[in-house]
Amino acid sequence: VKISPAWIIQKKRDGEELSESEIRDFIRGVTSGQIPDYQAAAFLMATFFVGMSFQETAALTQAMVESGERYDLGKVKGPKVDKHSTGGVGDKVSIALAPLAAACGLKVPMMAGRGLGHSGGTLDKLESIAGFDVRLPFARFEQILSQVGCAIIGQSERIAPADKKLYALRDVTATIECIPLITASILSKKLAEGTQALVLDVKVGNGAFMKTREQARKLSKTIVQTAKKMGLPCRALLTNMDQPLGYAAGNALEIAECVALLQANGRNGAAPDTELSSTDLKEVTIQLCAHMLVLGRVAKTLAEGRRLAHARLADGSAWRVFQDQVRAQGGDVSQILDPSKLPQAPVRHEILARKRGFVARMDTELLGRILIELGGGRKVAEDSVDPAVGIVFHRKLGAKVAAGDKLATIHAPAPFAARERMAEVEASFHRAVEIAAVRKPVPKLVLEVI
Amino acid sequence: VKISPAWIIQKKRDGEELSESEIRDFIRGVTSGQIPDYQAAAFLMATFFVGMSFQETAALTQAMVESGERYDLGKVKGPKVDKHSTGGVGDKVSIALAPLAAACGLKVPMMAGRGLGHSGGTLDKLESIAGFDVRLPFARFEQILSQVGCAIIGQSERIAPADKKLYALRDVTATIECIPLITASILSKKLAEGTQALVLDVKVGNGAFMKTREQARKLSKTIVQTAKKMGLPCRALLTNMDQPLGYAAGNALEIAECVALLQANGRNGAAPDTELSSTDLKEVTIQLCAHMLVLGRVAKTLAEGRRLAHARLADGSAWRVFQDQVRAQGGDVSQILDPSKLPQAPVRHEILARKRGFVARMDTELLGRILIELGGGRKVAEDSVDPAVGIVFHRKLGAKVAAGDKLATIHAPAPFAARERMAEVEASFHRAVEIAAVRKPVPKLVLEVI
Repeated sequence: VKISPAWIIQKKRDGEELSESEIRDFIRGVTSGQIPDYQAAAFLMATFFVGMSFQETAALTQAMVESGERYDLGKVKGPKVDKHSTGGVGDKVSIALAPLAAACGLKVPMMAGRGLGHSGGTLDKLESIAGFDVRLPFARFEQILSQVGCAIIGQSERIAPADKKLYALRDVTATIECIPLITASILSKKLAEGTQALVLDVKVGNGAFMKTREQARKLSKTIVQTAKKMGLPCRALLTNMDQPLGYAAGNALEIAECVALLQANGRNGAAPDTELSSTDLKEVTIQLCAHMLVLGRVAKTLAEGRRLAHARLADGSAWRVFQDQVRAQGGDVSQILDPSKLPQAPVRHEILARKRGFVARMDTELLGRILIELGGGRKVAEDSVDPAVGIVFHRKLGAKVAAGDKLATIHAPAPFAARERMAEVEASFHRAVEIAAVRKPVPKLVLEVI
Repeated sequence: VKISPAWIIQKKRDGEELSESEIRDFIRGVTSGQIPDYQAAAFLMATFFVGMSFQETAALTQAMVESGERYDLGKVKGPKVDKHSTGGVGDKVSIALAPLAAACGLKVPMMAGRGLGHSGGTLDKLESIAGFDVRLPFARFEQILSQVGCAIIGQSERIAPADKKLYALRDVTATIECIPLITASILSKKLAEGTQALVLDVKVGNGAFMKTREQARKLSKTIVQTAKKMGLPCRALLTNMDQPLGYAAGNALEIAECVALLQANGRNGAAPDTELSSTDLKEVTIQLCAHMLVLGRVAKTLAEGRRLAHARLADGSAWRVFQDQVRAQGGDVSQILDPSKLPQAPVRHEILARKRGFVARMDTELLGRILIELGGGRKVAEDSVDPAVGIVFHRKLGAKVAAGDKLATIHAPAPFAARERMAEVEASFHRAVEIAAVRKPVPKLVLEVI
């Protein structure tokens, strides 16, 4: 039998299980360029339709790890545990969680991503702090981990280049939404960065990649089981994304929200211009931290983990670690000590409720798209983002609203001072946020643990 | 909504029907190179899984026709009717049929293909006649059609370039076996060549592309309905390919078999070194011709068409048209007047039956692969073929065989004079041709008409 790329594509297409060596050879060929992109694209689409066994998914993940360097964090003392989120609107959890987990005794070697489509990216948010450097050489990454306890960097060219190449192809061939491919993409980076355990935050809802709990559960099970098969202890929390997380969406605005949470000594952080607090952000952060602490064996039980996380948030040590991290990564600490020094949008516009009632529905993906329109997100990977712009919410799901109440403040760039431009934003916002006569139950925040 | 190539791929992937303009834009982009091959490959694989509606298949066909030139045969008087076969082993029908149909009063503007994989190609067969030119300029093609009545040429670069490009991609991305893609590929060429009606010979069986009658029926219905939708009257005959057609497989050997049939004045042509005659070849040729005559309105009924075809074969006029065609296309007529002047293989080897019984099964695809091993076919499109080599069968399905009877004569190139090389061929042959104690029913030749 001839082992050609076309034959491997055909085997996948016909639903036969590929062997480890077939997957390894294919991924090597794709990475080296010996297998052309059109064969890789056909393989990806066949995989979209046919799926992959756990065995195949693990082999794909392994092949992607082996396509590049693998960090050895053996010199960094302490349990190394990372978190990954599937992304959403206002999902700033990593920024508060990494220093909190470090303050609790973990090392958090986090390789994060940029925003694409309606969901934001941790790197973009951190870069709204002047000077913050997400492209650290390995030695510096290792040093900051040892000294501060957490560091957040981007995926270097040398880490899982097969993933970079396949991800770019998936983006333009309609093969993003494929569980085994998502699994291999996430896990290859995490295995290569040198973490010893992983907690996943799988977002579910109208602002998430996974719209239904069923899809989210399937993805979570695949990632958790594949990770375990590859020797990486892993848990997944399904958390709700039927509304933005916290009260801010937008890069610098989200940094400010995290600062407020970390500075609040365990109380609910609240920005001066909103009646909302970060209750949901805090809750998700504490829960994920507790699971990280259990996986890292710093805590024996989840209850113990939660108590420890609460304590480190309340005693200000998470806030101190965050300052240390920002300083170590080259960021301007004065901007987090006084978030009014972060980039500020020139135009602010309040959106008022047109009628009384209760906030019944938030089309979170549309809210994410409004953020893109404002310049705070990316349509294509090459776009740059405006750190200053975004949306601050004053009401979220379940809130009682009187006509004329502030629903949100839009932070916009200069061209939106024009009435027509802002009118468009306002119209989209009203389409996204539905006010109904009766209060609907607010979705549970943490849906399940896998 | 953004109309990007990725969006069209996603729409197809998700099972939504594409509009005519979406398909046209996509095919234009692929042809011009604006849409990269990897997006075309993903589209092809999505189409493999999802399929296409008749509307989409017609739009794809139309877009492929419009990607290049379309021949206008308005100056050629008489009804223009072509035939297309899905291919098999020993399928030399076009070579006898085109002059026969012309002798009956049709014009046959045939754009044929080359062999690939186990199935042979009409162009390769004709090129075993010295000087035979399949790359005629349009004016010459038109002239021969007017004067002789038939001409067989290859697909020029200017005809349906989108088909050429997509076919090459399909070949390396495991997306050949897809009914709407096959349909558009066949029909785009036929519509561009200027025929007014089309008869399909859809081969079914272990030597055919379509292994089951169900698949063949589905393909036939799709092609016939799509052709009709596009204003091209079309019929399909499902014919058996569980054994080679006629007694010869191999390029020059098949020309010789056609010559014998055309020269025999309507008797069953038989080569001197085989007890077999071309009964099946003659029957398929007459049947296809009758359908062509009905579509071309030369005959009112199939029975009338069959009678006319029989008559033109018997009175030698088809044989004269073939000579005229060969002469007009630059071929050496002396080689068809005396087929012993066609290329001859240096090595001949008789394969004898090892036991008595009946020929119960012929693995026709394997027989086609033996022909490739001998050098008479192509593994990849760039291979050249040896016109002289092939297999002459002395027994086919249902024949009674005594141990030691000649089953076939292998016509091989010089290296096969080595005992081991020929022993391999012989072993493959015995695997392909099964002798059983009881006679099995021989499959019907023409299975159905669609």
